[in-house]
Amino acid sequence: MARSDIPDIVIGRLPIYLRALTRLQQEGHEITSSQELGKRLGISSAQIRKDLSHFGEFGKQGTGYNISTLSNELRRILHVDREWRVAVIGIGDLGHALAHYAGFAHRGFRITHLFDNDPAKIGQRVNELEILPYDRMVEIIRQEGLKIAMITTPADAAQEVADLLVEAGIRAILSYAPIVLNVPENVRIQYIDPVIHLQHMTYYLSNSRNR
Amino acid sequence: MARSDIPDIVIGRLPIYLRALTRLQQEGHEITSSQELGKRLGISSAQIRKDLSHFGEFGKQGTGYNISTLSNELRRILHVDREWRVAVIGIGDLGHALAHYAGFAHRGFRITHLFDNDPAKIGQRVNELEILPYDRMVEIIRQEGLKIAMITTPADAAQEVADLLVEAGIRAILSYAPIVLNVPENVRIQYIDPVIHLQHMTYYLSNSRNR
Repeated sequence: MARSDIPDIVIGRLPIYLRALTRLQQEGHEITSSQELGKRLGISSAQIRKDLSHFGEFGKQGTGYNISTLSNELRRILHVDREWRVAVIGIGDLGHALAHYAGFAHRGFRITHLFDNDPAKIGQRVNELEILPYDRMVEIIRQEGLKIAMITTPADAAQEVADLLVEAGIRAILSYAPIVLNVPENVRIQYIDPVIHLQHMTYYLSNSRNR
Repeated sequence: MARSDIPDIVIGRLPIYLRALTRLQQEGHEITSSQELGKRLGISSAQIRKDLSHFGEFGKQGTGYNISTLSNELRRILHVDREWRVAVIGIGDLGHALAHYAGFAHRGFRITHLFDNDPAKIGQRVNELEILPYDRMVEIIRQEGLKIAMITTPADAAQEVADLLVEAGIRAILSYAPIVLNVPENVRIQYIDPVIHLQHMTYYLSNSRNR
């Protein structure tokens, strides 16, 4: 099957498989199975085998998957067998939190550029990175050839930021602003929305009187 | 089909449908279709119809869905036709950001309790909420009957916090800490992990030399 025919929903599960494999490896495992992965993730083993089959043969019947090999393959497929530089726009509480976040290391990403439009913040350092002026953002991102950015501005600024990021050549945007942004079809956008996760869980909470 | 037989992956899509419906309503629409929703979300219309069919009949062949009616049904199914109080544990940059986050309103959640173990922070106010002492967390959460909490502590504190939250009666945890937490089977846990979203997008980025 040609790569372009693989459903986006399958692609979306690959990072989850990679995270589970990394966890298994940290626990000292070298081999796993679609059954074990499925049990950990709440996904059927048949689904996992079918998802992976889009990309080749990774396990042998009865012997399972070599965790290291499969992890490396997934990193290659997801293009995170290298380190992408990432810009963060909007250095408020959330921007600071991301600049200090320990979860990017060894997973393909490094925050390298911070931008804000507040003159009082420009030139300050966060985790050794200098906060750069918003009015130079397009120029700097274009010059550096950055392809990925995170938007952590207030909602009412986010669309303007997204427009400028697209103009600067950004191809993937992760937005924390609680609004839907319009970007051209050749730019990927995803949202961090805690409510989506909370609503998923409240489905399972009984109609308790304590609320 | 009995509610307990509905796959978790289907439940996970309902909040995404609800968010899209809310957006359509804000744009002034009153009626939509599985085709329109599917196009917006990158999910097949057949999948959407199948997902919704677990819960009853929401649309008529040829006339589509009434957005207001379907939204209300989804809110009822997800138990967000009310407001859940939420505790946040760890009031650093991220805790501050969540306490100010505008995206919870009218979506079923309100942050009502903040906890931290730093004596310098206790008693301070964030968005009109007083930061409460961590050593009284179990007592207060139990007394108030809170069922939902968000963990925004450093990774090395997160498991202890989760254990105490479970002891206090919390039934759903949203964790921002970049580690996997162990909780009993009757407690739901989800993670906010920006890397999962970034890796999903880098799949589509070509092997550009600029990185």
